[in-house]
Amino acid sequence: MVSNLMDKIVALCKRRGFIYPGSEIYGGLNGTWDLGPLGTLLANNIKNEWWKSIVLSRDDVVGLDSSILYHPKVWEASGHVASFTDPLIECKICHERFRADHKKDISEHEKMHDKQKWTEIKPFNLMFKTYVGPIDNEENKTYLRPETAQGIFINFQNVINSTRVKIPFGIAQIGKGFRNEITTGNFLFRVREFEMMELEYFVNPGLDEKWYEYWREQRLSWYLKLGIKKNNIKLVDIPKKDIAHYARKATELWYNWPFMGFGELEGIVNRGDYDLSQHAKYSGRDLSYLDQDTKEKYLPYVIEPSVGLGRTMLAFLLDSYYEDDPSTHSTGSGQASSGPSGKRVVLKLHPKLASVKVAVFPLLANKLPLVNLSKDIYYNLKKQINGMVAFDDRGNIGKRYYSQDEIGTPFCVTVDFQSLEDKTVTARDRDTTKQERVKIENLEKYLSTKLN
Amino acid sequence: MVSNLMDKIVALCKRRGFIYPGSEIYGGLNGTWDLGPLGTLLANNIKNEWWKSIVLSRDDVVGLDSSILYHPKVWEASGHVASFTDPLIECKICHERFRADHKKDISEHEKMHDKQKWTEIKPFNLMFKTYVGPIDNEENKTYLRPETAQGIFINFQNVINSTRVKIPFGIAQIGKGFRNEITTGNFLFRVREFEMMELEYFVNPGLDEKWYEYWREQRLSWYLKLGIKKNNIKLVDIPKKDIAHYARKATELWYNWPFMGFGELEGIVNRGDYDLSQHAKYSGRDLSYLDQDTKEKYLPYVIEPSVGLGRTMLAFLLDSYYEDDPSTHSTGSGQASSGPSGKRVVLKLHPKLASVKVAVFPLLANKLPLVNLSKDIYYNLKKQINGMVAFDDRGNIGKRYYSQDEIGTPFCVTVDFQSLEDKTVTARDRDTTKQERVKIENLEKYLSTKLN
Repeated sequence: MVSNLMDKIVALCKRRGFIYPGSEIYGGLNGTWDLGPLGTLLANNIKNEWWKSIVLSRDDVVGLDSSILYHPKVWEASGHVASFTDPLIECKICHERFRADHKKDISEHEKMHDKQKWTEIKPFNLMFKTYVGPIDNEENKTYLRPETAQGIFINFQNVINSTRVKIPFGIAQIGKGFRNEITTGNFLFRVREFEMMELEYFVNPGLDEKWYEYWREQRLSWYLKLGIKKNNIKLVDIPKKDIAHYARKATELWYNWPFMGFGELEGIVNRGDYDLSQHAKYSGRDLSYLDQDTKEKYLPYVIEPSVGLGRTMLAFLLDSYYEDDPSTHSTGSGQASSGPSGKRVVLKLHPKLASVKVAVFPLLANKLPLVNLSKDIYYNLKKQINGMVAFDDRGNIGKRYYSQDEIGTPFCVTVDFQSLEDKTVTARDRDTTKQERVKIENLEKYLSTKLN
Repeated sequence: MVSNLMDKIVALCKRRGFIYPGSEIYGGLNGTWDLGPLGTLLANNIKNEWWKSIVLSRDDVVGLDSSILYHPKVWEASGHVASFTDPLIECKICHERFRADHKKDISEHEKMHDKQKWTEIKPFNLMFKTYVGPIDNEENKTYLRPETAQGIFINFQNVINSTRVKIPFGIAQIGKGFRNEITTGNFLFRVREFEMMELEYFVNPGLDEKWYEYWREQRLSWYLKLGIKKNNIKLVDIPKKDIAHYARKATELWYNWPFMGFGELEGIVNRGDYDLSQHAKYSGRDLSYLDQDTKEKYLPYVIEPSVGLGRTMLAFLLDSYYEDDPSTHSTGSGQASSGPSGKRVVLKLHPKLASVKVAVFPLLANKLPLVNLSKDIYYNLKKQINGMVAFDDRGNIGKRYYSQDEIGTPFCVTVDFQSLEDKTVTARDRDTTKQERVKIENLEKYLSTKLN
């Protein structure tokens, strides 16, 4: 493992515009992060790949985009009002509050005061509350959703009635969730506001075990296909005693985080019919499914793969970070594409995830024919390539390669003097640093094939 | 104008899975709407077209995705704590609350009681409040953002420091906003939770007028290119006395809404340097821009085109709704693709916006060779076409056309007996209802060309 990998990633993310601390100019707002230009592109690409894999490429899953504010009864029915809590204790000396199960924080705090003087442990509800409408009272109180899943369950009947889905089928949603964590930390790992990608896959109760297995494998393979190293990710079945009360079975996809070793990236849970039966009870609606062929009527079970976009981004960033010795690489210009440290820093992101797909350079910024031809190519690629295309004419070519490597751009196209003669350009591969000469007329096809 | 157009759109949206009332099974949560499967696809397509037009296709605009929760100082600096209010009055008899400037609602309410007995008018702040961290006190109180723009201003320096932008340049953001409206209504028109698409375009103060004109025209042309009828949209300059205190100039793009005639769809505002200078003052940071060429240092002015996704969706849905007399159309099967009313309902959405791009049918569901070939074509198109591809084998072919017309699918591909002999299929155009025979090997190219 690269030493201080997290520090390097956090610094790179800030410096290059992937991720900034939230409300930074006001001293920050704990547990919030803002995506900069490159982070927004990366996040959009991750969401697109999830959406393509879960919704567009399949027959049996539809999308949904529910609001963040729901009727407060939703959270009574789901059990969140009663039990979406963490154990909270307060220091009687300075009134600072801690999670009672975070023993390390507590013992460190005790050292500070050189004694312990704690309140009793109280459950603290992690939902952010707010009031809807012009009167602040209990009746108008509701919560920011801590998960998108309930927005799917409360629309189960609407989806059944307005589409042609048949069990087994899924409803997928990407959207924001909020959890008022007592303590936050480890960059994007534990935050208060986050985007989630959730699928609720409804199945016949007898077949839940089969689909649970299916989705465990599907989700693992999604990460592997997008480049996460096999050694850094694994499926871990959670023992019955440690799983949530609504769950029949739970698996977690663990990633090998540099700050803690293996820990949760994504959860895959068999929620049984807990949610639909609770909402049926609280709403008085019949939420059962009628099988048109067998005329059987039942509450389906649901398998839920659910992951935070932030953790996913963090895993992809960490996993793709490399430092190379630049002396082993050819840069074409005789100059090493290295940073001040002498090392080449590369994000070897999968081309489908990379924020910028292609960067186009004129070899020299002060030779008009090179600049004009490179601009032509740049504008054409911008229309043809699915994703962001960049242009750079600053500094020397080696620095430009270095700059694109560090943000994970898979290909750099350089227009040089030979280009003016034979209508070819060089296309440089980020990972091998090898260059190929490609005819300009074939460039779009050459790049599209490698990017997809 | 089609009579009761809004009622028809609302019903179609619910019936076909575009838009459901929020928290419906619990009696609804006023001012919230959930996007169903087709609405989610439509919304994603609208956001993609905005993003491509504003960010990906340009040189001078970068994206951002800031959190919804900001440090509370942000809202002091922006002026929202002090003045993001509506005038509220309360009926002394029944304690119902109204916007004091909504005269019609008030006079109707007075009729109900047969007298008037109102409290004094009080300003009501439209920001939803919540508390961050484990203690509910004034210090931890903040708000759900009522606009995404401030997330851009507070990151202005971060973007300058982490990218290579040079004035003039823009920062664009798509994200949720929340306004605790006293009264909501007209479907997606006035809601409490909504998604916004905002661009803050930073310019040299002397050139703001030019860029303001530029963005007025750009934004109008975006709607026209995506099919909004010229007669239904216009730019309206807002008189100085009616514009917000921070604005130097404001234009609105008005759409011809069926429930009110012309009214606001999008705003284009010259905000001057109000926001950056306020945040500089409240944060103590120097937020000025240094021109590297002239060494001039200044606070840029900003031009802001800003629109709600809900209003945009509503305008596209209303504008594309048609009812045809089916007897004038050929359906190929001899059956009219009409609904129970005898009329053909069509959403003539631009192909780039349509939720489903292509639907594939076997002429008959019980002829295996037709089904197999149509499934092959369907799965291939699903991989090749950028967007959702559907399959339908239920009922007769006329009903299937009708069903796709009603949701705006631009093309239906039918596999018939001739397909088995000569490897051609029919491709039916939604708007003309004309069918062409296309070779299966050319189908992807035929469709892609027409869809883009």
